[in-house]
Formats: sequence, structure tokens, C-alpha cells
Amino acid sequence: MEPIYRYRQIFPLYPDYLLILNVAIQPHLQGSSFDRAILQKCLELASRAAGCTAPNPLVGSVVVKEGEIVGEGFHPAAGEPHAEVFALRAAGERAKGSTVYVNLEPCNHYGRTPPCSEALIKAGVKKVVVGMVDPDPRVAGGGIERLRQAGIEVIVGVEEAACRQLNEAFIHRILYQKSWGILKYAMTLDGKIAATTGHSAWVTGEAARHWVHQQRAASDVVVVGGNTVRKDNPLLTSHGVGLHDPLRVVMSRSLALPQEANLWNVEKVPTLVLTEVGANPELQKSLRSRGVEIITFPQLTPQVAMEHFYDRGLSRIFWECGGVLASRAIAQGTIQKIMAFIAPKIIGGQDAPSPVGDLGLVQMSEALNLERVSMTSIGSDFLIEGYLQ
Amino acid sequence: MEPIYRYRQIFPLYPDYLLILNVAIQPHLQGSSFDRAILQKCLELASRAAGCTAPNPLVGSVVVKEGEIVGEGFHPAAGEPHAEVFALRAAGERAKGSTVYVNLEPCNHYGRTPPCSEALIKAGVKKVVVGMVDPDPRVAGGGIERLRQAGIEVIVGVEEAACRQLNEAFIHRILYQKSWGILKYAMTLDGKIAATTGHSAWVTGEAARHWVHQQRAASDVVVVGGNTVRKDNPLLTSHGVGLHDPLRVVMSRSLALPQEANLWNVEKVPTLVLTEVGANPELQKSLRSRGVEIITFPQLTPQVAMEHFYDRGLSRIFWECGGVLASRAIAQGTIQKIMAFIAPKIIGGQDAPSPVGDLGLVQMSEALNLERVSMTSIGSDFLIEGYLQ
Repeated sequence: MEPIYRYRQIFPLYPDYLLILNVAIQPHLQGSSFDRAILQKCLELASRAAGCTAPNPLVGSVVVKEGEIVGEGFHPAAGEPHAEVFALRAAGERAKGSTVYVNLEPCNHYGRTPPCSEALIKAGVKKVVVGMVDPDPRVAGGGIERLRQAGIEVIVGVEEAACRQLNEAFIHRILYQKSWGILKYAMTLDGKIAATTGHSAWVTGEAARHWVHQQRAASDVVVVGGNTVRKDNPLLTSHGVGLHDPLRVVMSRSLALPQEANLWNVEKVPTLVLTEVGANPELQKSLRSRGVEIITFPQLTPQVAMEHFYDRGLSRIFWECGGVLASRAIAQGTIQKIMAFIAPKIIGGQDAPSPVGDLGLVQMSEALNLERVSMTSIGSDFLIEGYLQ
Repeated sequence: MEPIYRYRQIFPLYPDYLLILNVAIQPHLQGSSFDRAILQKCLELASRAAGCTAPNPLVGSVVVKEGEIVGEGFHPAAGEPHAEVFALRAAGERAKGSTVYVNLEPCNHYGRTPPCSEALIKAGVKKVVVGMVDPDPRVAGGGIERLRQAGIEVIVGVEEAACRQLNEAFIHRILYQKSWGILKYAMTLDGKIAATTGHSAWVTGEAARHWVHQQRAASDVVVVGGNTVRKDNPLLTSHGVGLHDPLRVVMSRSLALPQEANLWNVEKVPTLVLTEVGANPELQKSLRSRGVEIITFPQLTPQVAMEHFYDRGLSRIFWECGGVLASRAIAQGTIQKIMAFIAPKIIGGQDAPSPVGDLGLVQMSEALNLERVSMTSIGSDFLIEGYLQ
């Protein structure tokens, strides 16, 4: 299948935080242009909690009365009230006879909070504009049905592509009971993530690195392998660009890792080490004493790691590893999306590290094609994104 | 220096032939919008002879009388009349009192043809609009001066960036007495020009390959190394997309090349083999008997090859070689421009061939930065172009 080129929309979120969403080109747009603009506002609100809501989706809601916004809200974290509840609270009495916009179908079941469908009915809203049906089988159209039964007009599918994009990790989690893997790498225009010596600071410019910090803030987990710890000694935080830092994860079967590393400082951000049973007991002891969480598996693979993340309620897994672990992750089907930065520079070297190790593909025709590919320039670098089939 | 992003303009030339020009963003545009549009028309006319004029530049000319085009022409090949002459001929009597547009300053010296400045004066033109001053020291403003002395109004610098781009190989030839080298390669999104096995058909899609055929048609020479002949057995022709096929050149020091190869068929398009003195005398004899031109050097390097091309009057040299020869060509300063196709697919393999071999650069900060970088999508692939400093 040919990649589909896409519009890009950039949402200003909070100061110095941008979330870039891809919106597929749609021949028929659902809703009026006003509806679409307000739905985009919902997405902007929703994304304020990016990285904070797992395993829940990102949801924003806006209440409109006589053409004016009278209330807005977003779901801040699992266990907290849903977006509609905050928006209705803000609207107060003005919610009566209003139109409520929400990027995801209102829930219709009792979870940790009561159903939003009932709250909307109780508030006397006249119309509800929904971005997308909730794929959660406990909702799956039931919320919309309940609203319609109560005489509320419901429009569904406004800015649907953008809604799906924002919650792609959540949708994947619900549909496949799996976490969503993104492989990010930065390479030179001749395809190298480092010089022949392994030196890699920096391939891309400041703007691209800032963008990566934003992606970390929007992720639940950042994963690297032992090689990256040994060679780059990374911090893997969001460097304060977002409200949130992801769980930093090191995958190392041998646990042949240095005694001192930035990741072993867990004062501000936790680090989880995944390894195999019996690997380097002294280091295990030392790291545990410093507050690093260690989990051992009989056999550590990307798949096992992803299952563990899923079980912990972590959805958006941002792989920032080198070529060897990247190829294992791709081969095991744990990567759904590729984010490849390309810096307009040439470093040279057949033996210089490549972004993806061996996949056992011998013919070019066997290459893994990306779908829904998009390209943008960030600072002086280029970002190509696409989805593995 | 940060790369400068650029507008792109696509000119339809003859059926199924597109020439893409980069035009730098200019804060102040010279000439009226009408002048600029007609100058663009000159560039379109000029590029009809792309690949055919070396060592001469690509020049197009348009004669405008009372707001209407009354004559046009382009320089078809070295030894043939210049663009202005064709345009004036087409205009006939209407040239009197007209405005003549031309992308390169009219010549003022007797070469193989008489000076265009005199032809313009003789035709009684009122005004001349020039894209750029001719860097040729025999012209270098002299043509413009001669016209002004004769009482003709001259505007200079209309669409200058586009004019420079179209004739970048010619300008380089004149200024540095060197041929202009372009390195083109096509790689996967993980930086590989082939699978680990060497299999490479095809990295990019049909549209990108068609674009490469157009680039060959616009080039004087296409260069590959022995490895490419052995592994890919290429044709290296323009596949009929242009009027012209480049001289096909194989660089091989050892001449350890197959007896049978597509490039040894020189019925339609000539092939030149560059090798070292005494290399594989039997193959030399056999190839010569089939009409393949062979030139031997005491020591064959990209620099020696480029000097040879320059001496033959060949300006635009399109390098389509593998990583080993590419890195030698870059290291010797024979590459001015990079055209890198990126296909949205992943093949994997640390040992799979890379586009550029070792350059001896050990720190990422030593990487060769590209300037004036631009990106475009061609079919499902991306093309990143830039200039080496």
C-alpha cells in the first residue's frame, strides 16, 4: 500500500510545549467548520495531559452555549474525573441546552467514576459532538446510544482522524491488549546514528532534540539497551519541557552495565532495569540499594518487556535504543511506528552504527514498508514518520 | 552555517519531463512580476537543452513587444547559435523596440558565434532583462555595459537564484576550472542502499527512478565503480525521458569486470572505462573491440577522473556509485551536491551497504554539513538535496 501523505497540525499546549498531530486528508469532513474548530480545541485540551493518563485515553471536552465556550476540561490522570465532568462543572447552569464537544465517546459504564453519559443527560445538554467512538468494548457506541435514547442529538466522527492519532496508543491497547511501540532514531543523511568510533553527540540540532524531549513527556516509558547506557550515558528525561517524565527503562540481559550512570540517579525520575535471572548479582544489589527497580525474567525479549509494560498499565512505549535492540523489537512486532530524524550531514563509514540491525531480509523487495508516511522539517533536520504494517 | 530552506518550482518541459529548480527565498525581488514570469519562461526554454550544451551554459531567451511574446529561443548545443539569436530571428521585424529577456548576460566576444550584444543592438531592441551576470571573464558584465553604451535599458538580477541554480555546473566550471559533481544515492529509511546480500532492486519507487532518468538526461556524465557493474549490471541511460543520454563512465583500477555487461553495449550510448595502466589487458582488448573507450592513468582517483571530464568539456558529473567510491569522491572534493533519496521502508542489517564509506571522521561534530538543503517528495519517496561546503 502506498503511504498516505497527511496534513500536519501543530497545537500550542503549554508554554514551550508543542504536540504535532498528523491528520489524514479526508475527502468528506464531518460536522461544520465551527464543530471542527471546537473539536480541535478538545484535542488541544486533551493533549495537556499527554503522558499522564495511561492506561486511560487523552480526552478533552468543551461546552458551547449560543456560540460561546462556557466550559472546558480534560482528563488529567487515571482515577480522576473524565473531561466532560470538568467541562460541565465549569459551565454550571449554562450547560442546560448547550452543545458538548468531546474527542472520545462519553463512557456509559461505572468505572472508577460514574458514566459521563448520565452526567450529560442530567445536565440537560441539547447536543453532543463526538470525535470518535470509544473502541473500549464497555463503551463501543453504548454511550452514544444512551444519549440518543435520552433525546440528545449526537454527531459522531468530527475530526476523527486527528482523534484517532492522538489516542493511537490507547486504541492499540484496547483493540489488541498490547502496548504501543514507537522506535525513534536520529541518523545522518548517509544513514548513521554515530561515527565509526561510536561518537554520536549530536546527530541532530537543538530543535529536534527538544522535540524528542516533548515526545518523552508524552510517553509512558522510554526504553534503551545496555549499549546506549555504556556509550551515551543518557538522562532520558523530558528536560522539563512537559509536566511528566516517562519511566526510564534499561533492557540488559547480561547486566554488564557501569556502576555509575545518569540513569542510576532516581531522585527525580524512576528507572527500571529489566534483566535475566541471575545476571550480575552485585550490580543488582547495588542498583536496588540506590532505588533502581530491577525485574528479572527467565528470558528477556522486547516482547516480554512489552507484556510487562502492558500489565503495568503503560501504553506509549518510546524506544530510543541502538540498532541491535531496535531490530529485535521490530522483528518481534513490538514496534508500530517509526520516527526517524535525518540530519543534513555526512559522517561516512560502512562500519559506523546503523539505526536498525539485522532483520534477516535478503531481498530489497522484502523490506518492511511504512504506511501513512509523513515528513516535516524541525529546525535544520527532517523527521520522517510512518507506521509498520 | 544553517541550511537555507528554499521554495521549489517545477517546470513542465517537454512531455513527461520535469525539471525541478530550487529558488532561494529572496527578501527583495528584482523586476516586476511580469519580468519574473518571462524570465521563468526563459529558464524553461533553456532547460529544454539540459545535458546537451556542455561546456556552454543553458540559456533561453524571449522577445516581448507590447506585452506579447513575439519570439523565443534557446541555445541547443555548443557550436550552435545562442538563445538570443534564435529569439531575435523568430521575432523578425518585431524585435525593433522590444524587450528581450535572457537568463544569462548576453555575450560580448567572438567565440564560435558573433557577440549577442551586437545582435541585440543591431535589432534595435529597447530594453534587455538579464537573469544573472555571466561569470565568464570574457563577458563578466561587459555584455551589459556594451548594451547600456548603445542606449539600451538593462535590468539585471531578475530570478537570479533560479538562474544560478540552472547553470550551477557551468558557473562552477568557469569560476574554478572544474567539473561539477553530484552524488546521488537511494537508501532505505534505515540508511541502506541494499540488503545484506547486496540485493538492491529497488530501493525507491517508479517516480523516483524516473526522476533519476531525467537527471541522467540533464547530465554530461554518469559515473559508477566496478562494484556497481558487478552487482547491479546497470544500463545508466536516461531511458528515453530526455533528448540526451550521458556518457556512461566506469571507474575501475583493477578492471576486474565481467566479460558481459549492459554497459559494454555501446550501439546507442557510448561507455568510457577509466582504469590504471596495465590493468587486465585481455579485457581491455575485448572491450575496445566492442567499441568501449578505455583510458588508462598511472593512478586512477576521482580527482583524476574529474580533471579528465573537465578537459573533455563535460561539466555536470552525476555520480551513481556505491559507498566506497562515493567516500573517495567526497574526500577528494569532487562532489559539490548530494541528492539523497529516502524510501519509507526498513531493510535492516548493520553490514548492509551504506551510501558513503569511510571518511576518517571520528566525532559527530566533524560531520560534513550540507548547505541550502531542500526536501521534496517524489512518488512515495523523499529527496533531500544539499550542497557540501
